[in-house]
Amino acid sequence: ARPRVGYYYSGKKGNQLLKEMLNKMTVKDYKAVPVVIKEDTSVYDAIVTMFLEDVGTLYVVKERGTLAGIVSRKDLLKAAIGKQSLQDLPISVIMTRMPNIITCQIDDLLIEAANKLIQYQIDSIPVVKPLDNGEGLEVIGRITKTTIAKAFVELGKEKEV
Amino acid sequence: ARPRVGYYYSGKKGNQLLKEMLNKMTVKDYKAVPVVIKEDTSVYDAIVTMFLEDVGTLYVVKERGTLAGIVSRKDLLKAAIGKQSLQDLPISVIMTRMPNIITCQIDDLLIEAANKLIQYQIDSIPVVKPLDNGEGLEVIGRITKTTIAKAFVELGKEKEV
Repeated sequence: ARPRVGYYYSGKKGNQLLKEMLNKMTVKDYKAVPVVIKEDTSVYDAIVTMFLEDVGTLYVVKERGTLAGIVSRKDLLKAAIGKQSLQDLPISVIMTRMPNIITCQIDDLLIEAANKLIQYQIDSIPVVKPLDNGEGLEVIGRITKTTIAKAFVELGKEKEV
Repeated sequence: ARPRVGYYYSGKKGNQLLKEMLNKMTVKDYKAVPVVIKEDTSVYDAIVTMFLEDVGTLYVVKERGTLAGIVSRKDLLKAAIGKQSLQDLPISVIMTRMPNIITCQIDDLLIEAANKLIQYQIDSIPVVKPLDNGEGLEVIGRITKTTIAKAFVELGKEKEV
Protein backbone atom coordinates (compact mmCIF):
# COMPACT_ATOMS: atom_id res chain seq x y z
CA ALA A 1 0.00 0.00 0.00
CA ARG A 2 1.09 3.57 -0.65
CA PRO A 3 2.28 5.27 2.50
CA ARG A 4 0.17 8.22 3.61
CA VAL A 5 2.11 11.42 3.27
CA GLY A 6 1.56 14.97 4.39
CA TYR A 7 0.85 14.31 8.04
CA TYR A 8 4.25 15.19 9.41
CA TYR A 9 3.07 18.22 11.34
CA SER A 10 2.11 18.10 14.99
CA GLY A 11 -1.32 18.29 16.56
CA LYS A 12 -0.50 21.73 17.88
CA LYS A 13 0.05 23.09 14.38
CA GLY A 14 -3.16 21.58 13.09
CA ASN A 15 -4.95 23.23 15.96
CA GLN A 16 -3.37 26.59 15.08
CA LEU A 17 -4.55 26.17 11.53
CA LEU A 18 -8.13 25.48 12.57
CA LYS A 19 -8.03 28.43 14.98
CA GLU A 20 -6.77 30.63 12.13
CA MET A 21 -9.72 29.60 9.98
CA LEU A 22 -12.25 30.19 12.74
CA ASN A 23 -10.65 33.55 13.54
CA LYS A 24 -11.33 34.65 9.99
CA MET A 25 -15.05 33.93 10.21
CA THR A 26 -16.79 37.04 11.50
CA VAL A 27 -20.45 37.90 12.04
CA LYS A 28 -20.18 40.49 9.24
CA ASP A 29 -19.61 37.82 6.58
CA TYR A 30 -22.33 35.41 7.73
CA LYS A 31 -25.21 37.53 9.07
CA ALA A 32 -28.62 37.32 7.41
CA VAL A 33 -31.18 40.09 6.97
CA PRO A 34 -33.18 40.75 10.17
CA VAL A 35 -36.96 40.38 10.09
CA VAL A 36 -38.52 43.10 12.24
CA ILE A 37 -41.97 44.12 13.44
CA LYS A 38 -43.21 47.12 15.42
CA GLU A 39 -44.17 47.08 19.09
CA ASP A 40 -47.87 47.54 18.39
CA THR A 41 -48.07 44.55 16.02
CA SER A 42 -50.62 41.99 17.22
CA VAL A 43 -49.49 38.50 18.16
CA TYR A 44 -51.65 37.21 15.30
CA ASP A 45 -49.90 39.43 12.74
CA ALA A 46 -46.53 38.45 14.20
CA ILE A 47 -47.35 34.77 13.61
CA VAL A 48 -48.40 35.56 10.03
CA THR A 49 -45.15 37.50 9.48
CA MET A 50 -43.17 34.58 10.83
CA PHE A 51 -44.78 32.25 8.28
CA LEU A 52 -44.49 34.69 5.38
CA GLU A 53 -40.83 35.41 6.08
CA ASP A 54 -40.09 31.83 7.08
CA VAL A 55 -38.02 32.72 10.14
CA GLY A 56 -38.01 31.32 13.65
CA THR A 57 -37.51 34.58 15.52
CA LEU A 58 -38.74 38.15 15.02
CA TYR A 59 -37.08 41.29 16.31
CA VAL A 60 -39.33 44.04 17.64
CA VAL A 61 -38.12 47.57 16.90
CA LYS A 62 -39.02 51.11 17.94
CA GLU A 63 -39.82 53.89 15.49
CA ARG A 64 -36.13 54.55 14.75
CA GLY A 65 -35.34 50.89 14.09
CA THR A 66 -33.71 50.36 17.46
CA LEU A 67 -34.12 47.07 19.27
CA ALA A 68 -37.03 46.88 21.72
CA GLY A 69 -37.67 43.15 21.99
CA ILE A 70 -37.38 39.67 20.54
CA VAL A 71 -39.99 36.96 20.10
CA SER A 72 -39.49 33.29 19.23
CA ARG A 73 -41.74 30.59 17.80
CA LYS A 74 -41.89 29.22 21.32
CA ASP A 75 -43.19 32.54 22.71
CA LEU A 76 -45.83 32.72 19.98
CA LEU A 77 -46.88 29.11 20.48
CA LYS A 78 -47.30 29.73 24.19
CA ALA A 79 -49.52 32.76 23.45
CA ALA A 80 -51.44 30.80 20.80
CA ILE A 81 -52.61 28.16 23.27
CA GLY A 82 -53.58 30.82 25.81
CA LYS A 83 -57.03 32.28 26.30
CA GLN A 84 -56.42 35.77 24.89
CA SER A 85 -57.54 36.94 21.46
CA LEU A 86 -54.37 36.96 19.35
CA GLN A 87 -55.67 39.84 17.26
CA ASP A 88 -56.04 42.05 20.32
CA LEU A 89 -52.81 41.13 22.09
CA PRO A 90 -49.84 43.38 21.16
CA ILE A 91 -46.49 41.66 20.71
CA SER A 92 -44.96 44.00 23.32
CA VAL A 93 -46.85 42.09 26.02
CA ILE A 94 -45.18 38.75 25.31
CA MET A 95 -41.77 39.72 23.90
CA THR A 96 -38.47 39.49 25.76
CA ARG A 97 -37.29 43.07 26.34
CA MET A 98 -34.04 44.93 26.43
CA PRO A 99 -31.80 44.66 28.40
CA ASN A 100 -32.56 40.91 28.57
CA ILE A 101 -31.67 40.32 24.92
CA ILE A 102 -28.41 38.68 23.88
CA THR A 103 -26.89 40.62 20.97
CA CYS A 104 -23.72 40.57 18.89
CA GLN A 105 -21.88 43.04 16.66
CA ILE A 106 -20.47 42.76 13.15
CA ASP A 107 -16.83 42.40 14.16
CA ASP A 108 -17.53 39.56 16.60
CA LEU A 109 -16.27 36.12 15.62
CA LEU A 110 -18.91 33.74 14.34
CA ILE A 111 -17.75 31.18 16.88
CA GLU A 112 -18.45 33.67 19.70
CA ALA A 113 -21.99 34.15 18.41
CA ALA A 114 -22.38 30.35 18.13
CA ASN A 115 -21.21 30.03 21.70
CA LYS A 116 -23.89 32.51 22.85
CA LEU A 117 -26.60 30.53 21.01
CA ILE A 118 -25.61 27.42 22.95
CA GLN A 119 -24.85 29.07 26.28
CA TYR A 120 -28.13 30.99 26.48
CA GLN A 121 -30.20 28.27 24.73
CA ILE A 122 -31.56 30.64 22.09
CA ASP A 123 -32.17 30.24 18.35
CA SER A 124 -31.32 33.70 17.07
CA ILE A 125 -29.09 36.65 17.96
CA PRO A 126 -29.72 40.15 16.59
CA VAL A 127 -26.65 41.83 15.12
CA VAL A 128 -26.72 45.40 16.43
CA LYS A 129 -24.88 48.67 16.05
CA PRO A 130 -24.94 51.01 19.08
CA LEU A 131 -26.11 54.49 18.04
CA ASP A 132 -23.58 57.26 18.59
CA ASN A 133 -25.93 59.20 20.81
CA GLY A 134 -26.32 56.22 23.12
CA GLU A 135 -29.99 56.04 22.30
CA GLY A 136 -30.27 52.36 21.62
CA LEU A 137 -29.09 49.57 19.35
CA GLU A 138 -29.83 49.64 15.64
CA VAL A 139 -30.73 46.18 14.33
CA ILE A 140 -28.63 45.39 11.25
CA GLY A 141 -28.69 41.61 10.93
CA ARG A 142 -29.33 38.22 12.47
CA ILE A 143 -27.25 35.17 13.35
CA THR A 144 -29.22 31.95 13.88
CA LYS A 145 -28.52 28.27 14.36
CA THR A 146 -29.17 27.97 10.62
CA THR A 147 -26.32 30.44 10.00
CA ILE A 148 -24.02 28.25 12.08
CA ALA A 149 -25.13 25.01 10.41
CA LYS A 150 -24.43 26.61 7.01
CA ALA A 151 -20.96 27.70 8.14
CA PHE A 152 -20.27 24.17 9.39
CA VAL A 153 -21.31 22.66 6.07
CA GLU A 154 -19.10 25.20 4.27
CA LEU A 155 -16.09 24.04 6.28
CA GLY A 156 -16.44 20.64 4.64
CA LYS A 157 -16.42 22.26 1.22
CA GLU A 158 -13.37 24.47 1.82
CA LYS A 159 -11.03 24.26 -1.14
CA GLU A 160 -8.21 26.19 0.49
CA VAL A 161 -7.42 27.22 4.01
CA ALA B 1 8.96 41.23 15.37
CA ARG B 2 9.18 37.49 15.80
CA PRO B 3 8.64 35.64 12.54
CA ARG B 4 5.54 33.44 12.47
CA VAL B 5 6.53 29.83 12.31
CA GLY B 6 4.73 26.59 11.68
CA TYR B 7 2.88 27.58 8.51
CA TYR B 8 5.16 25.90 6.02
CA TYR B 9 2.59 23.39 4.80
CA SER B 10 0.42 24.02 1.77
CA GLY B 11 -3.30 24.89 1.60
CA LYS B 12 -4.02 21.43 0.26
CA LYS B 13 -2.59 19.80 3.35
CA GLY B 14 -4.51 22.10 5.67
CA ASN B 15 -7.61 21.16 3.77
CA GLN B 16 -6.81 17.46 4.18
CA LEU B 17 -6.40 18.00 7.87
CA LEU B 18 -9.79 19.69 8.22
CA LYS B 19 -11.40 16.95 6.13
CA GLU B 20 -9.81 14.35 8.42
CA MET B 21 -11.34 16.04 11.44
CA LEU B 22 -14.77 16.29 9.87
CA ASN B 23 -14.56 12.68 8.72
CA LYS B 24 -14.12 11.60 12.33
CA MET B 25 -17.33 13.32 13.46
CA THR B 26 -20.20 10.87 13.08
CA VAL B 27 -23.88 11.03 13.99
CA LYS B 28 -23.29 8.32 16.59
CA ASP B 29 -21.09 10.60 18.72
CA TYR B 30 -23.28 13.69 18.54
CA LYS B 31 -26.91 12.50 18.47
CA ALA B 32 -29.27 13.55 21.26
CA VAL B 33 -32.12 11.55 22.77
CA PRO B 34 -35.27 11.60 20.58
CA VAL B 35 -38.49 12.97 22.02
CA VAL B 36 -41.41 10.89 20.77
CA ILE B 37 -45.20 10.90 20.97
CA LYS B 38 -47.86 8.46 19.77
CA GLU B 39 -50.05 8.94 16.70
CA ASP B 40 -53.22 9.45 18.75
CA THR B 41 -51.69 12.25 20.85
CA SER B 42 -53.73 15.46 20.55
CA VAL B 43 -52.13 18.57 19.08
CA TYR B 44 -52.65 20.24 22.46
CA ASP B 45 -50.75 17.50 24.31
CA ALA B 46 -48.03 17.62 21.65
CA ILE B 47 -47.54 21.34 22.33
CA VAL B 48 -47.37 20.68 26.06
CA THR B 49 -44.80 17.91 25.47
CA MET B 50 -42.74 20.26 23.33
CA PHE B 51 -42.61 22.80 26.17
CA LEU B 52 -41.94 20.23 28.88
CA GLU B 53 -39.14 18.58 26.91
CA ASP B 54 -37.89 21.90 25.51
CA VAL B 55 -37.40 20.63 21.96
CA GLY B 56 -38.33 22.17 18.64
CA THR B 57 -39.44 18.98 16.89
CA LEU B 58 -41.32 15.86 18.00
CA TYR B 59 -41.16 12.46 16.36
CA VAL B 60 -44.38 10.48 16.10
CA VAL B 61 -43.98 6.73 16.52
CA LYS B 62 -46.12 3.63 16.07
CA GLU B 63 -46.69 1.04 18.77
CA ARG B 64 -43.32 -0.61 18.12
CA GLY B 65 -41.36 2.63 18.27
CA THR B 66 -41.03 2.89 14.51
CA LEU B 67 -41.17 6.28 12.82
CA ALA B 68 -44.61 7.35 11.61
CA GLY B 69 -44.27 11.12 11.39
CA ILE B 70 -42.57 14.31 12.44
CA VAL B 71 -43.98 17.59 13.69
CA SER B 72 -42.24 20.94 14.10
CA ARG B 73 -42.99 24.07 16.13
CA LYS B 74 -44.05 25.62 12.87
CA ASP B 75 -46.62 22.86 12.22
CA LEU B 76 -48.00 23.25 15.73
CA LEU B 77 -48.16 27.03 15.48
CA LYS B 78 -50.08 26.73 12.21
CA ALA B 79 -52.58 24.38 13.88
CA ALA B 80 -52.80 26.63 16.95
CA ILE B 81 -54.04 29.62 14.96
CA GLY B 82 -56.55 27.47 13.08
CA LYS B 83 -60.19 26.98 13.95
CA GLN B 84 -60.07 23.40 15.24
CA SER B 85 -60.09 22.39 18.89
CA LEU B 86 -56.51 21.42 19.68
CA GLN B 87 -57.67 18.90 22.29
CA ASP B 88 -59.71 17.00 19.67
CA LEU B 89 -57.22 17.13 16.80
CA PRO B 90 -54.87 14.11 16.68
CA ILE B 91 -51.26 14.85 15.77
CA SER B 92 -51.47 12.33 12.91
CA VAL B 93 -53.66 14.83 10.99
CA ILE B 94 -51.02 17.55 10.86
CA MET B 95 -47.72 15.62 10.98
CA THR B 96 -45.42 15.06 8.02
CA ARG B 97 -45.55 11.35 7.23
CA MET B 98 -43.20 8.65 6.03
CA PRO B 99 -41.85 8.45 3.36
CA ASN B 100 -41.58 12.25 3.27
CA ILE B 101 -39.28 12.39 6.30
CA ILE B 102 -35.55 13.04 5.98
CA THR B 103 -33.64 10.62 8.21
CA CYS B 104 -30.04 9.70 8.97
CA GLN B 105 -28.25 6.72 10.48
CA ILE B 106 -25.62 6.42 13.22
CA ASP B 107 -22.65 5.85 10.90
CA ASP B 108 -23.41 8.89 8.75
CA LEU B 109 -21.01 11.80 9.01
CA LEU B 110 -22.25 14.74 11.06
CA ILE B 111 -21.48 17.01 8.13
CA GLU B 112 -23.81 14.95 5.91
CA ALA B 113 -26.61 15.39 8.44
CA ALA B 114 -25.83 19.14 8.64
CA ASN B 115 -26.02 19.32 4.88
CA LYS B 116 -29.49 17.72 4.96
CA LEU B 117 -30.71 20.24 7.55
CA ILE B 118 -29.69 23.07 5.23
CA GLN B 119 -30.69 21.45 1.93
CA TYR B 120 -34.21 20.51 3.07
CA GLN B 121 -34.65 23.57 5.34
CA ILE B 122 -35.54 21.53 8.40
CA ASP B 123 -34.59 21.87 12.06
CA SER B 124 -34.30 18.25 13.09
CA ILE B 125 -33.43 14.86 11.61
CA PRO B 126 -34.40 11.59 13.30
CA VAL B 127 -31.58 9.08 13.62
CA VAL B 128 -33.09 5.74 12.62
CA LYS B 129 -32.20 2.06 12.47
CA PRO B 130 -33.99 -0.01 9.81
CA LEU B 131 -35.60 -3.09 11.37
CA ASP B 132 -34.28 -6.40 10.08
CA ASN B 133 -37.72 -7.54 8.99
CA GLY B 134 -38.11 -4.44 6.82
CA GLU B 135 -41.04 -3.32 8.96
CA GLY B 136 -40.03 0.26 9.49
CA LEU B 137 -37.40 2.49 11.01
CA GLU B 138 -36.72 2.43 14.72
CA VAL B 139 -36.10 5.95 16.10
CA ILE B 140 -32.88 5.99 18.13
CA GLY B 141 -31.79 9.63 18.24
CA ARG B 142 -32.01 13.13 16.90
CA ILE B 143 -29.69 15.55 15.15
CA THR B 144 -30.76 19.20 15.21
CA LYS B 145 -29.33 22.58 14.30
CA THR B 146 -28.45 22.85 18.00
CA THR B 147 -26.34 19.69 17.66
CA ILE B 148 -24.48 21.27 14.75
CA ALA B 149 -23.99 24.61 16.54
CA LYS B 150 -22.54 22.70 19.51
CA ALA B 151 -20.16 20.78 17.23
CA PHE B 152 -19.06 24.07 15.63
CA VAL B 153 -18.34 25.62 19.03
CA GLU B 154 -16.41 22.49 19.99
CA LEU B 155 -14.16 22.88 16.96
CA GLY B 156 -12.96 26.17 18.41
CA LYS B 157 -12.09 24.44 21.67
CA GLU B 158 -10.21 21.51 20.09
CA LYS B 159 -7.00 20.88 22.00
CA GLU B 160 -5.59 18.37 19.53
CA VAL B 161 -6.45 17.34 16.01
